[in-house]
Amino acid sequence: MHAVGIDIGGTKIAAGVVDDAGTLLATTRRDTSPEEPHAIEDAVVDAVAELRASFEVSAVGVAAAGFVDPGRAKVLFAANLAWRDYPLRDVLRERLGLDVVVENDANAAGWAEFRFGAGRDVQDMVMLTVGTGLGGAVVIGGRLVRGAAGAGGEVGHMRLVPAGRACGCGHDGCWETYASGSALVRETRAALATDPERARTLLDLAGGKAKHVTGPHVTQAARAGDPLAVEMLADLGTWLGSGMAALSALLDPTTYVIGGGVGAAGDMLLGPARATLEEQLFARAQRPLPQVVLATLGNDAGIVGAADLARVVLD
Amino acid sequence: MHAVGIDIGGTKIAAGVVDDAGTLLATTRRDTSPEEPHAIEDAVVDAVAELRASFEVSAVGVAAAGFVDPGRAKVLFAANLAWRDYPLRDVLRERLGLDVVVENDANAAGWAEFRFGAGRDVQDMVMLTVGTGLGGAVVIGGRLVRGAAGAGGEVGHMRLVPAGRACGCGHDGCWETYASGSALVRETRAALATDPERARTLLDLAGGKAKHVTGPHVTQAARAGDPLAVEMLADLGTWLGSGMAALSALLDPTTYVIGGGVGAAGDMLLGPARATLEEQLFARAQRPLPQVVLATLGNDAGIVGAADLARVVLD
Amino acid sequence: MHAVGIDIGGTKIAAGVVDDAGTLLATTRRDTSPEEPHAIEDAVVDAVAELRASFEVSAVGVAAAGFVDPGRAKVLFAANLAWRDYPLRDVLRERLGLDVVVENDANAAGWAEFRFGAGRDVQDMVMLTVGTGLGGAVVIGGRLVRGAAGAGGEVGHMRLVPAGRACGCGHDGCWETYASGSALVRETRAALATDPERARTLLDLAGGKAKHVTGPHVTQAARAGDPLAVEMLADLGTWLGSGMAALSALLDPTTYVIGGGVGAAGDMLLGPARATLEEQLFARAQRPLPQVVLATLGNDAGIVGAADLARVVLD
Amino acid sequence: MHAVGIDIGGTKIAAGVVDDAGTLLATTRRDTSPEEPHAIEDAVVDAVAELRASFEVSAVGVAAAGFVDPGRAKVLFAANLAWRDYPLRDVLRERLGLDVVVENDANAAGWAEFRFGAGRDVQDMVMLTVGTGLGGAVVIGGRLVRGAAGAGGEVGHMRLVPAGRACGCGHDGCWETYASGSALVRETRAALATDPERARTLLDLAGGKAKHVTGPHVTQAARAGDPLAVEMLADLGTWLGSGMAALSALLDPTTYVIGGGVGAAGDMLLGPARATLEEQLFARAQRPLPQVVLATLGNDAGIVGAADLARVVLD
Repeated sequence: MHAVGIDIGGTKIAAGVVDDAGTLLATTRRDTSPEEPHAIEDAVVDAVAELRASFEVSAVGVAAAGFVDPGRAKVLFAANLAWRDYPLRDVLRERLGLDVVVENDANAAGWAEFRFGAGRDVQDMVMLTVGTGLGGAVVIGGRLVRGAAGAGGEVGHMRLVPAGRACGCGHDGCWETYASGSALVRETRAALATDPERARTLLDLAGGKAKHVTGPHVTQAARAGDPLAVEMLADLGTWLGSGMAALSALLDPTTYVIGGGVGAAGDMLLGPARATLEEQLFARAQRPLPQVVLATLGNDAGIVGAADLARVVLD
Repeated sequence: MHAVGIDIGGTKIAAGVVDDAGTLLATTRRDTSPEEPHAIEDAVVDAVAELRASFEVSAVGVAAAGFVDPGRAKVLFAANLAWRDYPLRDVLRERLGLDVVVENDANAAGWAEFRFGAGRDVQDMVMLTVGTGLGGAVVIGGRLVRGAAGAGGEVGHMRLVPAGRACGCGHDGCWETYASGSALVRETRAALATDPERARTLLDLAGGKAKHVTGPHVTQAARAGDPLAVEMLADLGTWLGSGMAALSALLDPTTYVIGGGVGAAGDMLLGPARATLEEQLFARAQRPLPQVVLATLGNDAGIVGAADLARVVLD
Repeated sequence: MHAVGIDIGGTKIAAGVVDDAGTLLATTRRDTSPEEPHAIEDAVVDAVAELRASFEVSAVGVAAAGFVDPGRAKVLFAANLAWRDYPLRDVLRERLGLDVVVENDANAAGWAEFRFGAGRDVQDMVMLTVGTGLGGAVVIGGRLVRGAAGAGGEVGHMRLVPAGRACGCGHDGCWETYASGSALVRETRAALATDPERARTLLDLAGGKAKHVTGPHVTQAARAGDPLAVEMLADLGTWLGSGMAALSALLDPTTYVIGGGVGAAGDMLLGPARATLEEQLFARAQRPLPQVVLATLGNDAGIVGAADLARVVLD
Repeated sequence: MHAVGIDIGGTKIAAGVVDDAGTLLATTRRDTSPEEPHAIEDAVVDAVAELRASFEVSAVGVAAAGFVDPGRAKVLFAANLAWRDYPLRDVLRERLGLDVVVENDANAAGWAEFRFGAGRDVQDMVMLTVGTGLGGAVVIGGRLVRGAAGAGGEVGHMRLVPAGRACGCGHDGCWETYASGSALVRETRAALATDPERARTLLDLAGGKAKHVTGPHVTQAARAGDPLAVEMLADLGTWLGSGMAALSALLDPTTYVIGGGVGAAGDMLLGPARATLEEQLFARAQRPLPQVVLATLGNDAGIVGAADLARVVLD
């Protein structure tokens, strides 16, 4: 049976029809405005209607950034939208005449990797999505860890360093201030200011200006052998590995799945991450080493995971 | 139906008959030697025989310090004993003629608190046992988190401080180097060396010598108002809260259950722990505040939990 | 004999006539533009001419933000101006027909406090100027520590926390990211976002908006008993004390002189600073406790110190 | 003119005649007991008498571990001996009939390097003696920095890591807990426990037992290419460089002189130290890079420096 998955972003929604093997059969998009949450609902209804014109659909899964209640019915708090304690499931169910499930977007993406992607052969995995921030999802014993109040899985806000870097969340030393695309760019720009000689390629890519450097520039320069870019990716990988070691002490997952744009750096990122994880792993001589692999589903993971959760939850 | 729970320590075993409400009906003990693992099995067999003389017993749960495989059959690695990849379940089942389940001791104790103790009304809890070290157990959605390889739940070895205090495990900055009875004693002794004036009561209790100070001395002196002792317990509580905040970002449990001898300090410990947890909690304005409560089952928790797990797992 | 002291800022210069007891007899100012370094020289010449119309002047001391060479002749690098390896002393001497001495502005201010202010009775002091950043000056054995290349005394860029807060200098964990007006404002705004209830007075002062909070708001609210404001100043004081303890291990000064606008907080700042310094002081039982006192010369310290250095150096 | 230098250790004294070029002309030793401070004085008198039999001596310099008052007359506190506020200078002057100067032993050794060793061409240097602990001496503008109360120069007890490794001094995170022979041995043993494969040579040198590893073993294994030993020395060098960067922000010395047994590792230690110093150096694009060189005087530095200080101070 098919389900529709919808990924609600800050300025657009992406929707797709997904079969029960996780294959994305068709997609559509709508631009939206974060100032008009009701227009987002209209866009969802409209997109689902478009997809149902061609496919029989049994349920709808909706992924959104924020906290979703344990019943997967309400958006308790949305990062980029005005929803507060909002009964999104019931509102959409009413308008669509279909069963609806709501889930946090990082959880949905992680669920997709668990079911159909890099984690499909394991029961215990942690997904780490290295984007602007550091998102994630935790699957233990084949079940998504959502938290008693729906506020779990926020790996990026575990504190790695007391009195560490200031985080946008208001706290200090959060993992994402070290292991994210933003951290990569900020650290690289700072290093360029004091050490431009080791980053000729990188500076060329950025038109000669440190402040124009982007994450993809760093990856591209690193591939071309630029020493500073290689070092910056390795630093990011080291911080990833360091946090993973803490997670392994606590959860002992089989696999870490690394998603997000920075994954394009491949082993330049994953090599140092694995080395640090091994080095800092509690009791490493008495246990298997966790795998660290790249995500395989890319940006569609949110749609695929939301659709699959709709099926799984409603079964 | 009754089950027997057995808690295997370094120098003795404690066994008890537990009913399905978690009540401990009878107990017995045997002294053992860590150098003779086979003698431990003899002691287990002997203790079970004694208890079966008076009670009908359907299953046996065994708790031991170390890693236990996901099938709860083998001791992969024991902290204080010579067992390595040892099929303890099958060995005992053969000798006892009863079904047997093996579990890590901290997990067993945490399970008891979850089923019959401080966590009996929630589905998501983390137990933190502040003893010589910092042990723990994680229950998510009513299930014990054991790790893919049985190495999970080692909360005390999550790293809280990069390049932090040296831990007996060989790593640096593990939570237990800040939040444990050993840490309390070490820090208190160091503080006494430089600041004896603020700890008259404490020094009296220790016969005037900083090196004779114990954990119970600190709690007793704090109760009597000794300023340094109060500060030391508050520091320990602060470190507890700091680690809990990281756990809440990841797992969002309803409740933290604090066990171990230091719990005797009550709110002198829990107050600072709660304050720090609240202060460092990610998105605290958008979520409920986790509870922090004392364990209620004391030293019997290992026996009770092991017995109950035997029943639950074998059902 | 009188000397003129000149404090060169980013957008203005302040000049004054100072007698040999450190008394400021007259002052004048000129607006300047950081884009036109030569216009700054014109302004200096003009201001000195004005002052010489009324006073007999024997020498001129110039204070500027940046590195000044060991001979106090060249501005090696200026923080806000375009001077690089610039022979400011010789240029001005030529135009003024007077002896000239150039000094770093924080050093000049520290020297004034050492000679005529809070440090006038000691031979070993460290000045810490808590302004937007954290500046300072070190006087050892009655002599200013300028560094072999003129780059010393940058107390604000000693690293207090590995992998700590990102500093504008490109490094991490610099003292000034914890102990400065900017840090105070940033931390306070972040705390307000998650804990507005404890800061009613502070929010009122800022018109209800966390992002409008300033340093003086915090001090004012703390004086009115606002709990969050009090805590924020205490945190800043704690970080001051922590860095002082490191300095005392190295330099063992008699006195720390605290300057800058935050000093208005008085003992709400100095109390926690002293407590932390004492707590973290190496071998505190075997040594006197350093004094921590407020600067007494205010914003004129740069002029007074530059003028006095001109006299002292040229003697 | 010749002077005698005396280095008072915990269980022996070493004495020597030094000419005004810093050449050691003759030496002698006496075994002593830390329990009998008066016997130490007898040993000093006896050793000086022996040396005066062959050389004309004008003054005596005495180096001892501990705090020495600003007048270089009293031992305020001795680390290994019972002296407290003890007028050692006057006692010895009376018994010897010669002028006497007392100095902290690390200061004496640093002074020797400054006058006749690796720092003889500079005016601003910091000596770091990497022995069991981390000692040091600071020379600024050609003068030894002793501290207002004689408690300065204790570089090893600057805090590098908040809540860092426990130090014997009772505090946390002191530099010497990361950069000392003890730290090297402790870290190496811990690493061996979890990663023996990378340290075959090292384990062989230690007879197969991690707990028998010594500092010289690490250096020797590193020279033979043992990967773990190389990494351990590099880690130590990194911590040295990290602390040096903090010192450079404050003092901007020309040169760091590295003494102590670990110096035998040469560039395996100094290479990472230099790289880290450069990486963490404040404003490195605007200043010369400090030199990092090995000490040249070895274990005699204390004698040579004490003798020279006697001459210099009494002149």
